Amino acid sequence: MPGPVLVVGLGTFGRRFAARLTERGVDVMAIDRRRDLVEEVREDVAHAVALDSTDEEALAANIPEGTRAAMVAIGDDFEAIVLTTVLLKQLKVPLVIARAPTTLAARILRRVGADETLNPEEESADRWANRIAAPKFLNQIEFHEGYSLVEAPVPEDWVGKNLIELRLREKFLVHVVAIRRPRPESDLPPRIEMPRPDQPLQAKDVLILMGKDDDLGKIPGL
Amino acid sequence: MPGPVLVVGLGTFGRRFAARLTERGVDVMAIDRRRDLVEEVREDVAHAVALDSTDEEALAANIPEGTRAAMVAIGDDFEAIVLTTVLLKQLKVPLVIARAPTTLAARILRRVGADETLNPEEESADRWANRIAAPKFLNQIEFHEGYSLVEAPVPEDWVGKNLIELRLREKFLVHVVAIRRPRPESDLPPRIEMPRPDQPLQAKDVLILMGKDDDLGKIPGL
Repeated sequence: MPGPVLVVGLGTFGRRFAARLTERGVDVMAIDRRRDLVEEVREDVAHAVALDSTDEEALAANIPEGTRAAMVAIGDDFEAIVLTTVLLKQLKVPLVIARAPTTLAARILRRVGADETLNPEEESADRWANRIAAPKFLNQIEFHEGYSLVEAPVPEDWVGKNLIELRLREKFLVHVVAIRRPRPESDLPPRIEMPRPDQPLQAKDVLILMGKDDDLGKIPGL
Repeated sequence: MPGPVLVVGLGTFGRRFAARLTERGVDVMAIDRRRDLVEEVREDVAHAVALDSTDEEALAANIPEGTRAAMVAIGDDFEAIVLTTVLLKQLKVPLVIARAPTTLAARILRRVGADETLNPEEESADRWANRIAAPKFLNQIEFHEGYSLVEAPVPEDWVGKNLIELRLREKFLVHVVAIRRPRPESDLPPRIEMPRPDQPLQAKDVLILMGKDDDLGKIPGL
């Protein structure tokens, strides 16, 4: 099992991040200078301590042994974000991710040693824009620059045909990577199946396709 | 081409969302009660107007014909988020998405008619937690409850073997959906290829795999 993760700042983002990591089996140390926020998160994580992360000695004394990553999730005090980032790199935390309120802040944080930066507003805006711009897809995820995974209901005139006949890969350069298929015989959620090329598509199937954004947009009926 | 999209509130999220939609060819109408924010976004979108979205008449007079969706991206005035959402549904906007600062806020917004709600902090926290919890993957995207798409370098002892020999699907229930392969002969970015089952894997290949989170975690060497 890899080492603990330090989460600095327990606002909405930090608290949720810490709780999710814990759910996934990670040993989390959560800190904030506000004691009330530390108390709130105590049940959700392995360790929680109230301290000022810009206080070098306090930080050094509390970083768990073998810490492999730190998330600087302070929301609105840029000076504290920068100072904490610098101290964490001095303390040899291998991966320090810092929350950057703006593009300029992100550049500064990289300059002082942050390994990665994040901006929840921008990430979320991009994802929702992708979804709204492609209303015919139930879900669209860009997993690589220009390449997406999309979910789309099976077009009516594909029902009963199989993937060999449809030749989506040859004709449109897209790939059906999975099929989400309801289970009418039970109350269970739809099953995700790997597609068999010779299996006819059914009316309520949802296709999960991958390809270039441009190519995905070109498939008629989808 | 589907109809215009209304974006209410031009903070970091709203502005980025509006600009991204415009890039993707969507006709965007951006509004905010602050004239300076409207001026800043004017270059990025088709239409931008300063108005108070809680003023029913002003809103009704400015909604573009055929508006298919509205994003209520107001950040910190919950009363304004609720009022705007109610007015947009009264004005028959088919899809109204509202920004909800908390889980309780999300419930209230659904109750007054929001079709969807979003919380950038929570979305982003979940995604980063998934990534940090699975450090062996370069990238992990949950595209459906419990199912993810991950990117992982080819383990050393798989080099030279092909997908038929590896039997990942039979043994681990995961599916190689694509291969990201560098192009040493040129400066172009790596090519994303659909995998051929009989093609031997190469040392610098990055596999893009899909499967249940539990199953993905079980593959030795990955």
